Amino acid sequence: MSFREDGGAAVEWVASYLERVRDFPVLAQVEPGELRSRLPASPPETAEPFANVLRDLDEILLPGITHWQSPRFFAYFANTGSEPGVLAELLSAGLNQVGILWRTSPALQELEELTLDWLAQLLGLPEGLHGHIEDTASTCTMVALAAARQASPGSRAVVCSEHAHSSVEKACRLLELELRTTPVDEQFRLRPDALDLTHACAVVATIGTTSTSSVDAVDSIADACEAAGVWLHVDAAYAGSAAVCPELRSHFAGWERADSVVVNPHKWLLTPMDCSTLWTRRPDDLRAAFSLVPEYLRVSEEVASLSEYSPVLGRRFRALKLWAVLRCYGRVGLQERIREAIRLAALFEEWVREAPGWELTAPRPFSLVCFRRDGSDDENEALLQRINATGEVFLSHTKLNGRISLRLAVGNARTTEDDVRLAWEVLRRESE
Amino acid sequence: MSFREDGGAAVEWVASYLERVRDFPVLAQVEPGELRSRLPASPPETAEPFANVLRDLDEILLPGITHWQSPRFFAYFANTGSEPGVLAELLSAGLNQVGILWRTSPALQELEELTLDWLAQLLGLPEGLHGHIEDTASTCTMVALAAARQASPGSRAVVCSEHAHSSVEKACRLLELELRTTPVDEQFRLRPDALDLTHACAVVATIGTTSTSSVDAVDSIADACEAAGVWLHVDAAYAGSAAVCPELRSHFAGWERADSVVVNPHKWLLTPMDCSTLWTRRPDDLRAAFSLVPEYLRVSEEVASLSEYSPVLGRRFRALKLWAVLRCYGRVGLQERIREAIRLAALFEEWVREAPGWELTAPRPFSLVCFRRDGSDDENEALLQRINATGEVFLSHTKLNGRISLRLAVGNARTTEDDVRLAWEVLRRESE
Repeated sequence: MSFREDGGAAVEWVASYLERVRDFPVLAQVEPGELRSRLPASPPETAEPFANVLRDLDEILLPGITHWQSPRFFAYFANTGSEPGVLAELLSAGLNQVGILWRTSPALQELEELTLDWLAQLLGLPEGLHGHIEDTASTCTMVALAAARQASPGSRAVVCSEHAHSSVEKACRLLELELRTTPVDEQFRLRPDALDLTHACAVVATIGTTSTSSVDAVDSIADACEAAGVWLHVDAAYAGSAAVCPELRSHFAGWERADSVVVNPHKWLLTPMDCSTLWTRRPDDLRAAFSLVPEYLRVSEEVASLSEYSPVLGRRFRALKLWAVLRCYGRVGLQERIREAIRLAALFEEWVREAPGWELTAPRPFSLVCFRRDGSDDENEALLQRINATGEVFLSHTKLNGRISLRLAVGNARTTEDDVRLAWEVLRRESE
Repeated sequence: MSFREDGGAAVEWVASYLERVRDFPVLAQVEPGELRSRLPASPPETAEPFANVLRDLDEILLPGITHWQSPRFFAYFANTGSEPGVLAELLSAGLNQVGILWRTSPALQELEELTLDWLAQLLGLPEGLHGHIEDTASTCTMVALAAARQASPGSRAVVCSEHAHSSVEKACRLLELELRTTPVDEQFRLRPDALDLTHACAVVATIGTTSTSSVDAVDSIADACEAAGVWLHVDAAYAGSAAVCPELRSHFAGWERADSVVVNPHKWLLTPMDCSTLWTRRPDDLRAAFSLVPEYLRVSEEVASLSEYSPVLGRRFRALKLWAVLRCYGRVGLQERIREAIRLAALFEEWVREAPGWELTAPRPFSLVCFRRDGSDDENEALLQRINATGEVFLSHTKLNGRISLRLAVGNARTTEDDVRLAWEVLRRESE
């Protein structure tokens, strides 16, 4: 194969894809198993040209793609694989680094450390934190809780609100910790007065919960954690990126006191999957939980490797894409994208607020709007299914106070006011 | 920015890099902190062109890259980011899929399932296994042990040989399981007669250990596990890819009886970091350990998502690169690369065997040669340091029977007989 020729075709494929992406059905309109049935049941005996991969990507796989890159994707938390991030992934794959020890890729390790420092500065986090990258927030939260467990032998409870992310429960199951959920107030925020820290090793506070993007009172929670000597982990996987805007920093009050903080640049900071950033002011506790250097890796250089802070031994060169994004947007460019997403969400919120027969179901601190149509849960669920079946837009749902709410999350950088307007039109049309 | 223009430059960068890669010092010749000191301490305020990223990659980062893509990389287990795999990573980043539920990317999930079936066929694994992809073997082994722990409440020991990979110990620490190491025979294979399965939930047998690529007697170990009702996990992270060659299948006898098997296509199967494949015949036990579906993800479709078998919720589209590799090489192409690596390693082994003053220190079932120069450990370590400081080749070491051994691992698909000959010449030159 000619790498230049096939590479040119691959770049052209992505360029053309991104130009066309607004026009695809956002949610894949296929049945389970449909795709697989169209592919050979066995691998080829001899080599095929790379062009066949591109052909089948178009003809067979594309109908099975749910278009996260679509500006009309409003489900879960919408994200963006930006152009510099995408191309940096190509470079990263070309270099094929394996970060095990510092020496196996000094560039990988030092760029990861530097980029995490840069991002901490952009987000207004304190100086001197230790930062590294994991695949997803599930792993970051698990790492933080493993360190907390290690730091507090005998204390086996993890406290969080009932709106904390499911990854907290998943990590507790893995780490055999007791999950203790605390009730929330009417704005879906953890009630600090209801915190019970008996035998707790950690509290997980959330800035931007998955259901409603509610913001726990991190400052009050930090007071309680400090008094009890309990690890405070702040999950800002979605909303953390918004801290690049100084006018939004009030939502983050107290996170500078956390023992660990997770933010996902692959959610709202233009970085392709996967890139989840974890900072801690207690790196020694992470290292106590994860460091282990076997003989075949023992060398004389006195540099701790990132694998000593992480469940895995080898890591890929994820920092390159984050570095490319931070450089190709700059602080100002990142702020613009966050502000525009919030502006569009605020607009949509206004339309819902003023429309008879619709209600808002949660406050909107960032770019997520929770709402519902007057009527039963079944009616709202049916409405959601009809909307998503059109393929014009894709929204998701949650359950608040026992009732279904719809969620519209603005977060794709290519989303325009027209796209949000279309979502509202489709909602109104399908509700009639 | 123009994606086509920047993309063309990025493809050209990788093409040119792969053309030049043989000529770079294989092991980065920088001091800790050197790279970081050459980069700005703070992120830019405003956007920079992508060309700046490419410029700094050349001028600043490249000296800090240890060239895993170099055909003269013989350390650890050498790998290859092949051209189709690299380009598929570009496509994957462009699509930016997030596999959470099936519906969030039917193509991701069904291609991952299909590709793992294809690979199981290529490796001669049994039909009907459940397969999925994790980042690294560390995660796969941890997943298997978590499932084993779940399946055997009260049994908290994990048994493996003293030559098992450090990830077993890391997983045991995370899962709070007792690590019980079993002595090895003179060929560094777990001694089945020394197996103690009291209160054991799992045995980890290795086909291709990291130190010497020794092969545990999986068939005998499987007998013991079956009799005791203990989960058998087979770590074939490095050597598993060799099972594409029928003439090598004897090394894998018994792995078809395992409860779980891990193989790393990112090691010896031409796939860029990261891609580690895990198969199990007990998917329900994985699901019992990891499944958890929160309300905002509850949908009516009756398809289990891959996140129910995995510690993370969201996964990226890793199957695309593995699929591209399997198609663009085919069974025959994969076999050719495995056989050539083994041929080169056998050649090197012969040179060492016949040279006075050198000795082989372990049998060579695959493409890894363990050897040493007559003399003290200090002399061997100094020799290794001198060799790696030349930048001409890169080798690593291990400790066998209390003494330093050098390791030459052939695994990069671009390695030729001349490259291996160079390694031998450098070794002899620097030992004089």
